[in-house]
Amino acid sequence: MLPPIVLLTDFGHQDPYVGQMKGVILRHAPGAPIVDLCHEISPCNVAQAAFMLHASYVFFPERSIFICVVDPGVGTARRLLLACLGGRFFLAPDNGLLNFLGNRETSWWVVGADASPVSSTFHGRDILAPLAARLALGEPPHRLGVPMISGLSASSVSGARFGPDILECTVIHIDRFGNCLLDVQISALLRTGRLWRMGRRIVAEADTYAQLRPGRIGLIPGSQGVMELAMNQAPCARALNLEVGRKVTLRPREKRP
Amino acid sequence: MLPPIVLLTDFGHQDPYVGQMKGVILRHAPGAPIVDLCHEISPCNVAQAAFMLHASYVFFPERSIFICVVDPGVGTARRLLLACLGGRFFLAPDNGLLNFLGNRETSWWVVGADASPVSSTFHGRDILAPLAARLALGEPPHRLGVPMISGLSASSVSGARFGPDILECTVIHIDRFGNCLLDVQISALLRTGRLWRMGRRIVAEADTYAQLRPGRIGLIPGSQGVMELAMNQAPCARALNLEVGRKVTLRPREKRP
Amino acid sequence: MLPPIVLLTDFGHQDPYVGQMKGVILRHAPGAPIVDLCHEISPCNVAQAAFMLHASYVFFPERSIFICVVDPGVGTARRLLLACLGGRFFLAPDNGLLNFLGNRETSWWVVGADASPVSSTFHGRDILAPLAARLALGEPPHRLGVPMISGLSASSVSGARFGPDILECTVIHIDRFGNCLLDVQISALLRTGRLWRMGRRIVAEADTYAQLRPGRIGLIPGSQGVMELAMNQAPCARALNLEVGRKVTLRPREKRP
Repeated sequence: MLPPIVLLTDFGHQDPYVGQMKGVILRHAPGAPIVDLCHEISPCNVAQAAFMLHASYVFFPERSIFICVVDPGVGTARRLLLACLGGRFFLAPDNGLLNFLGNRETSWWVVGADASPVSSTFHGRDILAPLAARLALGEPPHRLGVPMISGLSASSVSGARFGPDILECTVIHIDRFGNCLLDVQISALLRTGRLWRMGRRIVAEADTYAQLRPGRIGLIPGSQGVMELAMNQAPCARALNLEVGRKVTLRPREKRP
Repeated sequence: MLPPIVLLTDFGHQDPYVGQMKGVILRHAPGAPIVDLCHEISPCNVAQAAFMLHASYVFFPERSIFICVVDPGVGTARRLLLACLGGRFFLAPDNGLLNFLGNRETSWWVVGADASPVSSTFHGRDILAPLAARLALGEPPHRLGVPMISGLSASSVSGARFGPDILECTVIHIDRFGNCLLDVQISALLRTGRLWRMGRRIVAEADTYAQLRPGRIGLIPGSQGVMELAMNQAPCARALNLEVGRKVTLRPREKRP
Repeated sequence: MLPPIVLLTDFGHQDPYVGQMKGVILRHAPGAPIVDLCHEISPCNVAQAAFMLHASYVFFPERSIFICVVDPGVGTARRLLLACLGGRFFLAPDNGLLNFLGNRETSWWVVGADASPVSSTFHGRDILAPLAARLALGEPPHRLGVPMISGLSASSVSGARFGPDILECTVIHIDRFGNCLLDVQISALLRTGRLWRMGRRIVAEADTYAQLRPGRIGLIPGSQGVMELAMNQAPCARALNLEVGRKVTLRPREKRP
């Protein structure tokens, strides 16, 4: 049985791009299970894609092969990378998308086109899909590329700042329910039931959406490994007028005399 | 060969939630075929999800396993249910989603988390997906839960009223073409070619969209087992300014002298 | 191993229609791999669907079976067709969708409902899906229909005009990135680095998006086999206020003295 090939792109659903990648995969590796992780990454938003891959890959079986195509530099000299961590494989452009894997336990290769004709605008279909199929069929990664010697391209990951008097962070994703995911790992320090202030709004630490009274903003340990600004059955992003990429600052609520 | 696992949620396509559920399923049941029934249920609209599941499950093979996650009460004490009818399995919160199955031929169990760590906000991934995988691998349902003794949670299904002088019903779904699906089963009594009046508009019973003249509203026996308000190649919902959940009243057209 | 069954429709993702087709396929052909090519064809836009199928089918394996449901005439007397070209099968209404296959190497059959009950509004699920499953299981096409004797229905394909002094064409698709795909095959004559004029805008022939300076419109050989009007990381369709179906005229840029 072949391992799953998992797709993460900014292609949306209105185009044939994802379908064509699947066709190429099935032509090279008949019977490979193909899974859509997400195709609604904001166009060219590498940071959002990196967050989503980071939050998701552990849920997939070992030997899973991830193809990640958020590739504003397609057609330029930017490299294509293959990484291996914990038995899972990752294929993506060298634009910061895989930098979260950049520790000592990850193996890295630079991959490229084989002899076939290749479009200059769709390397996900023409280069990465065939490589994923060859990995699925059991070809070892060192046959598909050359070891990466120079480092990863610089990442533009912005760091959150968290101290007793401040939580300064960025909205990295807004989900369908309007929950605003922050670049702040879930922490016991944020689960003590305190109140925060964000501009004029009060934000309450809570454990579940259902604990929040109607209209109340909560700071919740979400299902994606990070803290979320959320409301109970209401779109928090709209209430706070937030967008992906927006900086957010919370301060402890001042005690009134 | 494993049976299909079918997903119905209000998760949309912009998030990694559906993909993570698929990852968990494939980790526990490699090779299981996974099918998306729909992920665009309006957030938290249990009635719409129940309609869609009811209209769809018979098209799937016996032994299919449906995971239905429209779950506004996640993290509260609401129960999770497993039902079996006609060889097919259904997993969902006890919030009315499965109440249409509630007859004598259905078997019911209450299921819950096993020992693994579980998020408080995503039981579809952390509890239901592993249970579906175990069902797919052939584990009997009584090993996955305890028999349900107390009844189902109250359902908020609104009843339509249909008599010779009135058709009073609710829009339960609006499809991509703007057809407005009603909570009225297809009936020979609604296929006699009569004319109805809905406010100032005339509505004509018809058999197909193509029979309707441009601009004319029809009452059509649709493909989902219920009657639809529809137009020929035009979005009826926009012409009538209808939304999901809206009450609709039709009366026989008065004969003019 | 069964061949892939590939779906192309205008059903969108908000309805259970695609899911129900998959259920029917799996009931008749358990284990068949099912691939979504695209479901976001503009409602009833046959020309857009034909373009997408034409641009995509070669990427899929031989023996792939395409079900194409953009079917404004459902319920009328329009025929349903099965075509075979190069080992791949195509099922669609006779409304122009498959006319691009209409050469001497394609075999054609007219197919219809078997004895089962059939809805009058959803032939994709009730007729085409079971036929695709039977093809996947190896049943020969002549057992599924009768040879097509009379010709295809008239196609409304508009022809582009391309000469040294003019490029007159139509926008056949706009993708998620705002690239405007034209009904003009990729040609060496359009890859010489010339400048064109489109109204007041200058359009530059280029090879990749990345070659274009910010704000500059390019005429690019895209990944779908046709020329595209595009910008570098910006939505060209919005900059030029273009929509699918719009006629576009480019003329060589006048040399200024």
